[in-house]
Amino acid sequence: MKVINIAEKLDSFSEHWKPKIIAELNGQQIRIAKLKGEFVWHSHENEDEMFLVIKGKLTISFRDGDKALNEGEFLVVPKGVEHKPSAEEEVSIMLFEPASVLNTGNVNNDFTIKNLDRI
Amino acid sequence: MKVINIAEKLDSFSEHWKPKIIAELNGQQIRIAKLKGEFVWHSHENEDEMFLVIKGKLTISFRDGDKALNEGEFLVVPKGVEHKPSAEEEVSIMLFEPASVLNTGNVNNDFTIKNLDRI
Repeated sequence: MKVINIAEKLDSFSEHWKPKIIAELNGQQIRIAKLKGEFVWHSHENEDEMFLVIKGKLTISFRDGDKALNEGEFLVVPKGVEHKPSAEEEVSIMLFEPASVLNTGNVNNDFTIKNLDRI
Repeated sequence: MKVINIAEKLDSFSEHWKPKIIAELNGQQIRIAKLKGEFVWHSHENEDEMFLVIKGKLTISFRDGDKALNEGEFLVVPKGVEHKPSAEEEVSIMLFEPASVLNTGNVNNDFTIKNLDRI
């Protein structure tokens, strides 16, 4: 059992769009990531996904409009809903989601990462 | 789908030891609570529990020692492990745990809340 400092974990890497697993519980994972630029439109067939902004600003686009998230704000994207994260400037986020979630969901492209690092 | 601001949710109540549900996903709940003083020793037979400090300082006591958590830090308490949260000064926390988690786990006393508020 270890106390985990989110800022320290974020300081330990700099790459974008590569979520890192920092904890697991009840079949769910806590992941952190740094994002900058535009991701790909995708959805997760079976899993809801939670995006929490630790530092910076995150936009999550949906087919019917965008949602803006600031520090200390989060959004749950229900399973099956197409979404596209983006950030003009670098944003640091925390994700709560089942261990089964693939970062690009139903899409397989250069952003897809099958084996996430644990840090 | 709604953007949730954690600080605003925390501002909306003042009572201690009464977790509020602020979101649900994949059978898990995001709960927030304000704590001050000492809770009761308890464990959760089937559920791991995550404590994340939003503001203030939290102590989680275990039978073999205490862990101190500051803002931006979290700890996962594995199922079956006896623990006792406490805080000298008020602390605001976020909990990530299965919807089935009873706040006092295997103990039933004045702290027990069977139907948590949703805010």
